[in-house]
Parts: sequence; C-alpha cells; structure tokens
Amino acid sequence: MEAERLSSRKNPVIVRLRALAADAALRRAEGEYICDGDKLLREALEKGAAVTSVLWKGRAQDLPGLEDVRQYVVPEDLFDYASPMKNSPGPLFTLRIPPEEREPCFDRALLLENVQDPGNVGTLIRTAAAMGVDAVLLCGACADVYSPKTARATMGAVFRERLVHTDAAGAKALCEKNALPLYGAALSERASDIRVLDLRRAVVAIGSEGHGLSAELLALCDGELIIPMTQGSESLNAASAGTIVLWEMTRDR
Amino acid sequence: MEAERLSSRKNPVIVRLRALAADAALRRAEGEYICDGDKLLREALEKGAAVTSVLWKGRAQDLPGLEDVRQYVVPEDLFDYASPMKNSPGPLFTLRIPPEEREPCFDRALLLENVQDPGNVGTLIRTAAAMGVDAVLLCGACADVYSPKTARATMGAVFRERLVHTDAAGAKALCEKNALPLYGAALSERASDIRVLDLRRAVVAIGSEGHGLSAELLALCDGELIIPMTQGSESLNAASAGTIVLWEMTRDR
Repeated sequence: MEAERLSSRKNPVIVRLRALAADAALRRAEGEYICDGDKLLREALEKGAAVTSVLWKGRAQDLPGLEDVRQYVVPEDLFDYASPMKNSPGPLFTLRIPPEEREPCFDRALLLENVQDPGNVGTLIRTAAAMGVDAVLLCGACADVYSPKTARATMGAVFRERLVHTDAAGAKALCEKNALPLYGAALSERASDIRVLDLRRAVVAIGSEGHGLSAELLALCDGELIIPMTQGSESLNAASAGTIVLWEMTRDR
Repeated sequence: MEAERLSSRKNPVIVRLRALAADAALRRAEGEYICDGDKLLREALEKGAAVTSVLWKGRAQDLPGLEDVRQYVVPEDLFDYASPMKNSPGPLFTLRIPPEEREPCFDRALLLENVQDPGNVGTLIRTAAAMGVDAVLLCGACADVYSPKTARATMGAVFRERLVHTDAAGAKALCEKNALPLYGAALSERASDIRVLDLRRAVVAIGSEGHGLSAELLALCDGELIIPMTQGSESLNAASAGTIVLWEMTRDR
C-alpha cells in the first residue's frame, strides 16, 4: 500500500500513536499496541502477527507482508515526537493484541505476580520462548506486556509466546486443569531446593522484585522452591531467578 | 560526625557529587564513586566498604559506622538536584573504589566483554556473588561498574564481589595462571552444549548484547559453549545467558 505523508503533530495518526504508547488502558480498550524497529517489524510479519499500520522515519521500505497494511512516512522530527523511544531509527508499527485462549493447555509455564519492571517481564517472556516453556501467566500488577518497553525487551517473543492474564485463583484453576503442580519461588525454610524438584511438568511462580509472592498466591501453591545462594546474599533479581527456573524446567528435556 | 548543612547548588560538595555521578573518567581519576539508598549504605558499612561521605535528604540518620564519616544535610530540592536518581529517598554516599589485585587467584569466574547495559552488568555481578562465583572479569567497553546505575543493580554485590578490569590477553593470562579453561559463549556450530561441560573450575566469557564475543577473545578461548534454545529463538539477553552460565558453574557444587 502506498505510504501516506504526514507532517503535523496534530494529525490523528500521530496523536493516536502517542496515546497507544503511553496508555495501557487505551491499548486494552482498542486491542492494539505499538512496537518499534526494523528487526521487530520483520519478525512480526514473519510470525504472522497482525500488523495494522507502519510509521516510517524519513522514507518507507518495501517489505513483503506489508502490501495491505496502512503506511505513513514522516520527517525525522515528527517521528521522534511520535516515538516513545529516544533516537529510534524506526519504524514504529501497530499490532492487534491477540485474543487469549480461555482454557489453554500447556505442560509447563512460568507465572509472574506483580513483577513490575518492564525489562524483567519482557526478558522473561523472551527467555521462556527460547527455552520452550509453553506459556507465561501474568497475575496482579505486572508491567504491561504490551507497553513499548516490555514488548521491545521480549525481542519478538511477544509475537509467539502464549501469554495468559489471570489472577491467583485463575492460575491455580489452570494448573489443576492441566494437572500440573504449582510451585512458588520463596526464600522460606520449608522451600525445597530447586535442584531436587522435577519441574518438567509444572508451573513456577515468581513474585515482585521487592516483596516476593503474595500470601494469597503462596497459599495456593503445592510447594515452595528456593534457588540456593551463598551466605550473605539476600536475593536475586526477578529476571535472574526466573531465568534459572526456566532453565531448570527444560534442562533435562 | 556532626552533619553539615548545605544550601547552595554551587557548593563544591554538590558540584563534585554531580560530577562523580556523571563522569566515569573522573571516578577513575579520583578513585571514588557514589551509591544511593539507605539499604545500600547499611550494606556498605556492614561489608566494610570505604564510605567517604554521606549526603542526607532533609535530615541525617544516626547509623553505626558513620562516626568518622563526613556528612551533609540538604533540603529536598537540593538533594534531588545532586542525585542521579529521580525521586530517590536518599541518602547519597561516596565510596572509595577498592584497589584490584594484580594476580588474583580464583576457581571460577565470569568474563564480560563489551556488555554495555548497566543493568545487565550490575545484575550479573549480583548473581555471581549470590552463586558463589569468585570473580567477574571485565574486558573492553563494558558499562562502568562504578556508575550509579550499575552499582545500584548489583544490590550491594559491588561491595563484596571480586572485580577485575583487564583485556582479552590479560584475561587469558589469568586463566592460565589459575589453570582454568576459558570458554566462550557463542552461537556457533562447533560450540559444546553447556550441559555436557564441567564448569566447576572454569572461566566463561559472555559478549555484547548485539554482537557477542570479539574474534580476538574467541581466538583465545579453549572451547565454545552454547545454551540450547528452541528453534526460532535467536538469542538470549546477555544477563539471562550469563545467569544460566553462573548457575551451571555452581549447580553441582
């Protein structure tokens, strides 16, 4: 589709892109989110993600898969105004948020509860996809998966990993439906060493950076697990703990 | 020591704090760096790090270990002006950069080459300390360990983990001196699956986020290792790859 040239900050396309970048509620309401970068756009098209529009910086590129997609070209300064990233080479593009399965089947999943850093959430989705962990469940006040920062940190895994937004009870119900134990990562005395558990078919929950898992979620767990650390170390970054969990779930596959 | 009240942005103490936060070359020249936060200050004092001054927001606290340390109290707006962090509750404090051993002895180490994200470098130092990996070697253009962002991401591990700044040849010489093989994490066909290598006594190198290890460093490696991934996944975040390496180095300890 021929790219349309835009020149005004007040153009509704620009106004909407900025709103989609900034406003999680709007993303949910409209079922659309934005990503940036040539590499991610190519991956989105390759993975069959529903790309709905592209905003090019300076000039449009001719990519296969964009034939029926609305495209715009804007001068550099207007692009920088529209983009949530500093100094992005572009393009910016919008995608439809895919519908979530109501009762997904999976053999193993990572559950994130109140993990608030977009980089941590995005990295863990990326690592889950790389390790072959089927799904990532998100409970509570996690960073929005569809914010530009999180989506970027997934490096394209957001286009292919199964993501399930639910609450603690919903997560527990999904574990039961799939006949999987639910383990909570916790720094407690009764937690089992992660190395002695069989995590090949399991769901493991990781809590917030500052507070760990909620009492509500821990109460629903079938067991707790701990990643052993040297004395004097209090905790791991949530993404590091999650990475070790994902690795252990698939290490003996 | 009685805290001195400061009120001007032009006070040399404030000017120097801002310079130390922003300027890696100045930190090196003066052998001093800054951290922020009550929790990190307590940990620095507990670990015996050489705290040289404290800047309090609003009012000073009485902490054991600060008896001989120069302390300042400033109003909130002046604190926010001095601090490299937004909305920090304070305090800001300065520490002496510890001298590095010239020929350190260790049984295992992580080597980072050109890892540029301060969060990745800081997280890996934190995880190395938690896993009991003796040292982190830093080559090339890594994020400055003593920048406020990196130091913060270490969550205090910067006060206790052995850090060695060197170059590729220097790293190789340290491996030889400690009789340790040097493995490079690489996405190559000749790389060995990380699960089949014995990494209990070894040094493993992780390269930059975008480009992996340099040809120079790879040429010095005794072998290459790969973290197996599902098809369609190109790579892991440097911190995730490093975390899995650290875990595997110590998993069977």
